[in-house]
Amino acid sequence: MELKGIYAPIPTPFYPDGAIAWEALDRNLEKWLSSPLQGLVVGGSNGEFPSLSFAERAELTARVTSRTKGKLPVVMGVHCPSLSETLELCRAASDAGADAVLALPPHYYKGQNTVETLRTYFWKLADGSPVPVVLYNMPANTGFNLTAEHVREISTHPAIIGIKDTSGDIVQISRLCFEAREGFSVFVGSGGFFLPGLAVGCTGGTLALANLLPEACSRLMSLFLEGRIDEARKIQHRVLRLNHAVTKGYGIPGLKAALDAIGLYGGPCRLPLPELGPKNRQEVIQLLEETNLLEKEVWR
Amino acid sequence: MELKGIYAPIPTPFYPDGAIAWEALDRNLEKWLSSPLQGLVVGGSNGEFPSLSFAERAELTARVTSRTKGKLPVVMGVHCPSLSETLELCRAASDAGADAVLALPPHYYKGQNTVETLRTYFWKLADGSPVPVVLYNMPANTGFNLTAEHVREISTHPAIIGIKDTSGDIVQISRLCFEAREGFSVFVGSGGFFLPGLAVGCTGGTLALANLLPEACSRLMSLFLEGRIDEARKIQHRVLRLNHAVTKGYGIPGLKAALDAIGLYGGPCRLPLPELGPKNRQEVIQLLEETNLLEKEVWR
Amino acid sequence: MELKGIYAPIPTPFYPDGAIAWEALDRNLEKWLSSPLQGLVVGGSNGEFPSLSFAERAELTARVTSRTKGKLPVVMGVHCPSLSETLELCRAASDAGADAVLALPPHYYKGQNTVETLRTYFWKLADGSPVPVVLYNMPANTGFNLTAEHVREISTHPAIIGIKDTSGDIVQISRLCFEAREGFSVFVGSGGFFLPGLAVGCTGGTLALANLLPEACSRLMSLFLEGRIDEARKIQHRVLRLNHAVTKGYGIPGLKAALDAIGLYGGPCRLPLPELGPKNRQEVIQLLEETNLLEKEVWR
Amino acid sequence: MELKGIYAPIPTPFYPDGAIAWEALDRNLEKWLSSPLQGLVVGGSNGEFPSLSFAERAELTARVTSRTKGKLPVVMGVHCPSLSETLELCRAASDAGADAVLALPPHYYKGQNTVETLRTYFWKLADGSPVPVVLYNMPANTGFNLTAEHVREISTHPAIIGIKDTSGDIVQISRLCFEAREGFSVFVGSGGFFLPGLAVGCTGGTLALANLLPEACSRLMSLFLEGRIDEARKIQHRVLRLNHAVTKGYGIPGLKAALDAIGLYGGPCRLPLPELGPKNRQEVIQLLEETNLLEKEVWR
Repeated sequence: MELKGIYAPIPTPFYPDGAIAWEALDRNLEKWLSSPLQGLVVGGSNGEFPSLSFAERAELTARVTSRTKGKLPVVMGVHCPSLSETLELCRAASDAGADAVLALPPHYYKGQNTVETLRTYFWKLADGSPVPVVLYNMPANTGFNLTAEHVREISTHPAIIGIKDTSGDIVQISRLCFEAREGFSVFVGSGGFFLPGLAVGCTGGTLALANLLPEACSRLMSLFLEGRIDEARKIQHRVLRLNHAVTKGYGIPGLKAALDAIGLYGGPCRLPLPELGPKNRQEVIQLLEETNLLEKEVWR
Repeated sequence: MELKGIYAPIPTPFYPDGAIAWEALDRNLEKWLSSPLQGLVVGGSNGEFPSLSFAERAELTARVTSRTKGKLPVVMGVHCPSLSETLELCRAASDAGADAVLALPPHYYKGQNTVETLRTYFWKLADGSPVPVVLYNMPANTGFNLTAEHVREISTHPAIIGIKDTSGDIVQISRLCFEAREGFSVFVGSGGFFLPGLAVGCTGGTLALANLLPEACSRLMSLFLEGRIDEARKIQHRVLRLNHAVTKGYGIPGLKAALDAIGLYGGPCRLPLPELGPKNRQEVIQLLEETNLLEKEVWR
Repeated sequence: MELKGIYAPIPTPFYPDGAIAWEALDRNLEKWLSSPLQGLVVGGSNGEFPSLSFAERAELTARVTSRTKGKLPVVMGVHCPSLSETLELCRAASDAGADAVLALPPHYYKGQNTVETLRTYFWKLADGSPVPVVLYNMPANTGFNLTAEHVREISTHPAIIGIKDTSGDIVQISRLCFEAREGFSVFVGSGGFFLPGLAVGCTGGTLALANLLPEACSRLMSLFLEGRIDEARKIQHRVLRLNHAVTKGYGIPGLKAALDAIGLYGGPCRLPLPELGPKNRQEVIQLLEETNLLEKEVWR
Repeated sequence: MELKGIYAPIPTPFYPDGAIAWEALDRNLEKWLSSPLQGLVVGGSNGEFPSLSFAERAELTARVTSRTKGKLPVVMGVHCPSLSETLELCRAASDAGADAVLALPPHYYKGQNTVETLRTYFWKLADGSPVPVVLYNMPANTGFNLTAEHVREISTHPAIIGIKDTSGDIVQISRLCFEAREGFSVFVGSGGFFLPGLAVGCTGGTLALANLLPEACSRLMSLFLEGRIDEARKIQHRVLRLNHAVTKGYGIPGLKAALDAIGLYGGPCRLPLPELGPKNRQEVIQLLEETNLLEKEVWR
């Protein structure tokens, strides 16, 4: 398996009572599967994994793979507080049909994280997981940055096939690309720096934005690959504010509000994520309109 | 229940194969119960809670309460990634005989934490927990600071009886003490600022150091209460470096090395915590000797 | 010279056109000299030193010493971007009658600050200054923290007689007090942690708050020295919010608004410091009233 | 004047006694003027401006313009602690023949920096300066980040013609490019993210690296403009480690060691910058060799 192209880290749809909205998930998947998306991430940060039970995480992946039917790769987020639970979830991911797992570094005792313990941790995961492991650097949420030095030591394991870096540190991402061994892919972790990430050598991205604008993300990447940077940049610029709103700005509540606005199912979040007030919801809709890209999206 | 005096946040003893060393726990408890400690915290940060299973966390508390037999209060750490699991663990804590639970704020989506969601989160815990809730501010590990403003809004719930603040921000701790409603206690979260914490109004502390030096911690507090600040300060100063080594410096591996050195069971940590190398271990022993306090401790 | 008791870091009064209001300074000094203040700092952070010319800084000190007439020590802030200018200002300080100088670490190339270069820098200052040097740790403004390790290496020079630490890191301040050589004093740098600073061994403080409440600050310290901590704490608690408003909250504009409110001359700041709007000004007045301490101050 | 292409922020050469090495400067300039560099920055961060006197800063610029003779634009760093001195230096810059000035935001009272005070500050500079103003964002040194929101408000003044952003925050740089008014240029501030900076819309860069590798930097930019991103990326990757060594890693001492190694004059720094030890100096030489680009540089 090789990480390439545009992956959507899909949110988990909930009913107002907190139950998973399975049919809404199916309908969303139908749309995403008719788009140029090249992969899906289930139970990642945008999937609200900390608010899901162990069983729900596996079940969600099973439902998604039952719909994707192998047409595109499905990556499952497996982070649990302990290594043993994470390993168990790797096995459940494989049973549920996931093609790879996405794994955060341990981060509660971040002050004690050494390159040795990180390597040991990830190698145990890679040894024990039936499917390949993708590293997941998400410092805004974990408070810990997996550096290029860390990754150089960890990534020599053949079952560790790539990293999704959400740090936004473009020099770090450049170093990751430069130092990556053959077969190790670096993935952009946010639509805010998709173009510069591609410029420094990323092979694609896992972008919250791709849930909303798969066509635009795909077009940006195609233009880039054809060397038409000026046109790619125009798309990148146009999505900056919307991307901010559905990531750092309003987070998953913002993303779900945007999904609601374009006719997919967003719905509420589980606690502790807040509900988006009407004013912010209006702003998200406004930003969607400003992109001028939605009209070309398949679901409009 | 009122938080007062010196609590030890006890580490969880493991065998080299990672299994819990139950007998070692019993022997440690025997020592701690013969000391001036006024309370125990089980399954907190020093207890390596992220590396424990749900069942182990409850079982550890049950074992401890079977030994303490109500002689002193036992507080159980209950943080889980999701609210629903945390609530379940509150009930398990009560079943296991805990007198209160210690609860971190949600912190994965830290960028979306508002005072409203924090209040909703903790009030749901307080409503659902059969035993009182103690807030737990631990920014070095969570990457999120529970501010005095947050606490003012959260702490109006009568079942939320106090906070352990490990931030070391003494102005924040002063504000917490100043603004605390009747019946809400502020606890110092580290031996590095025990005396200044008492000075600004804390009623005690949950100190990793108290696992090692319960007599010294207790004496410091008594001297303080008698207004003999100069003598209290001498103890505070003398333990600064040792405290650093067993908290920020070497973390739980340092604390366990120190326990080994004084004749209690420290033992290894579970992954991802590193093992302490021989040189650092020697430094911890050296720091223990420098305190000049151990000779008066009961286990020497 | 020994650092002891309560120093006021006096603001520099300006007319609306930006000129120094010399007569207003004289009137303020008259008040401060009739208070229990034990020292003055001129041209420090509260004195807006970055907005003063070299000549103004020396002239201000000369004006102050012409009024204090040796009744209390006057310390002059001497930080300039370059070492050579700072040394020159040390000589000007001495000529102007200052008893000591207050010197920040170099901080523009903070990434290159090593303990060796810091020691070399401060020893050159101490060798070249006709009057003793007080270290000044002010990380909120400089973005660089002078650690206890740094200070241990720097402070062996006999002409370096103390430090004002504004970091608020009470463990660091404890270590500074513990490790201080005979004759090296540690001064609290903000009224927000005056009591805990005293508790861990500081000999006094340079407090913006002392410009407003010299009596209250002095009483807090006396109560502390008598071991009447509960009463000292009450004062500490009561000034927390006001102290915040005139330091981190609204800065020097807040301090000057408060001076205006109590009948001293505050006046406007030089650019780039903002003017305080009427609403914030009202809040400062409100906080002054809340302290319940002003009625006992000499100037009301 | 329009900011475009590659500028070198030249270091100030000193003799071991600290005096400016004027002839060495001339020889360096001769080399740089025979290279593809399109502009020079004098008395910027790499020019050790905080260690230069007011007179030296102007004199350096005059010397440089007497050599460049208008062949390429010369930008002078003018930051002083106070606005009035900075304004005076703007006038001196113009007298010395500078084409524009580079101005940091005020940053000592960073906690009080509002968009209004920043705008007022920079507009006063722009009104008073005889030559255009370039904003300079350098958070690693100032501890303050000039955000895209700030710049949007400040940059409406017609005499403010661009910004050099050294933050490395590629999303912020993208927003700056997206929101820039006609005639306002965004310049990359470090060779570590030159390619991604160009990708998102920068018109060039002021790169410490350009002092060493003007040909390589120029080639990278040409390749980029021709849409040959893969080749441009190869150069970007190859210089990553060297760039780090002469910026964040070893700073100006590293840059000067590299200049020494390639036959230009680097020489020592003024205090408080440290001297580079022999081991680190060797590493810098090693990194120069690893780039494989130097052989094509004019001075080898």
